[in-house]
Amino acid sequence: MKALLLIAHGSRRPESNDELAQLAWQLKTDMTDQFPIIESGFLEIAQPSIAQAIDHCAAQGATELRVVPYFLAAGRHVSKDLPAMVNAAAGHHPQLSVSIADHVGASVQMRNIVQECALAQG
Amino acid sequence: MKALLLIAHGSRRPESNDELAQLAWQLKTDMTDQFPIIESGFLEIAQPSIAQAIDHCAAQGATELRVVPYFLAAGRHVSKDLPAMVNAAAGHHPQLSVSIADHVGASVQMRNIVQECALAQG
Repeated sequence: MKALLLIAHGSRRPESNDELAQLAWQLKTDMTDQFPIIESGFLEIAQPSIAQAIDHCAAQGATELRVVPYFLAAGRHVSKDLPAMVNAAAGHHPQLSVSIADHVGASVQMRNIVQECALAQG
Repeated sequence: MKALLLIAHGSRRPESNDELAQLAWQLKTDMTDQFPIIESGFLEIAQPSIAQAIDHCAAQGATELRVVPYFLAAGRHVSKDLPAMVNAAAGHHPQLSVSIADHVGASVQMRNIVQECALAQG
């Protein structure tokens, strides 16, 4: 069973972290056929941690885990910390095969979003 | 004359910072009619700083500055630090009227990007 895990940095502002949980919730409307399990977690500061989120996916019966790094830039967090933490946590669930997608900032669609923000009123 | 300024957090990895300059460069293809001046800058760690980027816009004759925060989450950086630094820097250029757009993470299109990343091969 496939699980999708969104991972963001984590902020000290709860409203900011809530945005990620809300996005994961919205994705359940769009992607429940492809990913019966959709969860979110944080690299640092906020909870659930990456390890907690992966445990949660495994407890729901996940056998394939697709991780989407919700980061704009491929800094150290994306290139090193996130894969290391995902692989360490997934190591406790031998039934789980893991793949890590490109960070969202790598999408060519980001260009459209910047244009939309630039031209919006307000 | 209108200027568009993209502001990202800034990373210790030069490749990561280069992504922002590249995005600003690509936007010149799309938006040069609306924004004859397009620049990018960083909140911290990397250069140009916000103040340097705003000086650079003003030196090119900008009278209207549209700032797009290139951040996913509305954390303290977006809600407090960025507006404070933009307003302080713009204060040195009385001819400049400034507006700050929503951060890119607030766009409803982010949901499509996560789906694209989740379903991509590799």
